[in-house]
Amino acid sequence: MTETWFGQACGLPSQEHRQQAIVRQRQLTKPEGALGRLEALAIELAALQGTLQPQARRVPVLVFAGDHGVAAQGVSAYPAEVTVQMLHNFAAGGAAIAVLARELGLPLHVWDVGSRATQPIAGVVSDKPRPGTDDFSVGAAMSAADLHAVFDAGRRAVDAACTDGADLLVFGEMGIGNTTAASALAAALGPLPLEDLVGAGTGLDAVRMVQKKNIIARALALHGEAINAAASPGMEALQRVGGLEIAAISAAMIRAAQRRVPVLVDGFIVSAAALAAVRINPGVRPWLLFSHQSAERGHLHLLDALQAQPLLSLDLRLGEGSGAALALPLVRMACALHNGMATFAEAAVADREGTP
Amino acid sequence: MTETWFGQACGLPSQEHRQQAIVRQRQLTKPEGALGRLEALAIELAALQGTLQPQARRVPVLVFAGDHGVAAQGVSAYPAEVTVQMLHNFAAGGAAIAVLARELGLPLHVWDVGSRATQPIAGVVSDKPRPGTDDFSVGAAMSAADLHAVFDAGRRAVDAACTDGADLLVFGEMGIGNTTAASALAAALGPLPLEDLVGAGTGLDAVRMVQKKNIIARALALHGEAINAAASPGMEALQRVGGLEIAAISAAMIRAAQRRVPVLVDGFIVSAAALAAVRINPGVRPWLLFSHQSAERGHLHLLDALQAQPLLSLDLRLGEGSGAALALPLVRMACALHNGMATFAEAAVADREGTP
Repeated sequence: MTETWFGQACGLPSQEHRQQAIVRQRQLTKPEGALGRLEALAIELAALQGTLQPQARRVPVLVFAGDHGVAAQGVSAYPAEVTVQMLHNFAAGGAAIAVLARELGLPLHVWDVGSRATQPIAGVVSDKPRPGTDDFSVGAAMSAADLHAVFDAGRRAVDAACTDGADLLVFGEMGIGNTTAASALAAALGPLPLEDLVGAGTGLDAVRMVQKKNIIARALALHGEAINAAASPGMEALQRVGGLEIAAISAAMIRAAQRRVPVLVDGFIVSAAALAAVRINPGVRPWLLFSHQSAERGHLHLLDALQAQPLLSLDLRLGEGSGAALALPLVRMACALHNGMATFAEAAVADREGTP
Repeated sequence: MTETWFGQACGLPSQEHRQQAIVRQRQLTKPEGALGRLEALAIELAALQGTLQPQARRVPVLVFAGDHGVAAQGVSAYPAEVTVQMLHNFAAGGAAIAVLARELGLPLHVWDVGSRATQPIAGVVSDKPRPGTDDFSVGAAMSAADLHAVFDAGRRAVDAACTDGADLLVFGEMGIGNTTAASALAAALGPLPLEDLVGAGTGLDAVRMVQKKNIIARALALHGEAINAAASPGMEALQRVGGLEIAAISAAMIRAAQRRVPVLVDGFIVSAAALAAVRINPGVRPWLLFSHQSAERGHLHLLDALQAQPLLSLDLRLGEGSGAALALPLVRMACALHNGMATFAEAAVADREGTP
């Protein structure tokens, strides 16, 4: 069997740089541990980047968009046309992630890997095997060939974004109906109880949340056995109940880990893509840093399945990569503190109990 | 009775601007509420600043330092000399808050309102009624005249920092022994059970935490009745069990609120100063935004007493204003999103259920 690119080994964090970072944190002019989670973050980034001076300056944001056949079942509070409308809004700079990218000085790359857009959109890369998935409540979301094609698109997107160098990557998504696909993926691959995974998405009421849950339950009854029996349950789940933008993000994470570039993971949908990526290639996991816990109901459980402790919890539920962008300044400041603070010796400050 | 400056009225938030901000948030191209806490933050800042376009660009950081007589009782893991050594470290740029101020482009003002420094320190304003407090476990921390003098120093610091305009203020502190004073203030003014308020500070072990608690209990037995019986329990508590830097921060908060400048509140000690400020002048409370929940044990309870919901919870316990600085980018991004996102109409994106 020929090994696929996404099965190839990911990088390993540098234990040597981790140890050096731990030593440095102890020497900085603060009580040990007083910077809490930011100390662990700087140490982890030093290990991942293999450096004494971790950085999060160059952080490309890649937003992947795709449409979902299952949206026809009324699983979203918004009409499916919004996916393509929002592609224009990303490119024009009016969407949340576009505002945040400007504010933080981040290059924003928008990749249409599967929307129903029929015309080129200025500022959006079109690299899609097909315009939207099929309704996975009645059949597979896409063919195996389409999945491989969209995986290649995700890889290309990362390679293109990293040409000028990248300290860290942020992936975002847009796709009306994609919390439904993310819930199905999390249920199949966690495995996690479906009851814990179905939320309001962009704003469903209680009645329509029950309908959404029933549609996902039907899909799991249809596809669950084949997913569990597959050689790669991660790939099988993406093909049967995933989405094009979700699959592209799974692929992009694998590629980032192979290139030794850490990823700051966004919310519920990107975390579902992360779960699939880790199931496909477990070497991805160390490269994932988690930005926030979303208000979307299933995210907490998905984070637990990934053994992830996010930095923020601000009741966000927007997607687009916005939660990751919002957490980025914390990563930058963790680096600045690690690199820029004086040591006790440099500052001639007495350590605990007066030792020099 | 002549009214003191700190008893004079604070500004009131603008209900008109709050309403306009609420309307705008509903029009932005995102599901309503999808930006979670950041929506409420932008709305609140619009009301406080009385503007359609809230900002957090110009944010002076004022660090106040003071020494504590009670430190002689061994209530800190670090020797008292560290207060003055850290003043040098702030001025030289090696301390955490100095690194963060540089990273965020914030002017850093360091005010020695009561350290034991006997020589001028370049880059530090010396404006102190006395070098350190007396040991409050055996008598009052300071005289009423000293408290009024250090209140005036806090007011002067805010007035000086605001001469070039300020959208928001951050206050920090340095003072070996000051979690002991903060715990005593919180216990007296909450009122809150002392058991909930005594933590490790810069890193005490369990045995020394018990000693710290006993020392505070002794102080409360000595001063509690007088504090409760006083015309202004807030002023009385600051005088008897407070600290010079803590009192300066209480005064600075009152002055900020009178000048209609919101304050991003740091951790345990600054929150104790906030509690005193609110007890002295309740009109301060609306002007306080809370940055983070510290790992210092009492902070959660103190935040509850202030009915405060902080933005971050990252196990920080450093002080200096560092937690507030770390939360500032969230405030800035909340403003950028509020001011910079496109509306549904502007972006021609369909609203819920396809309404235009």
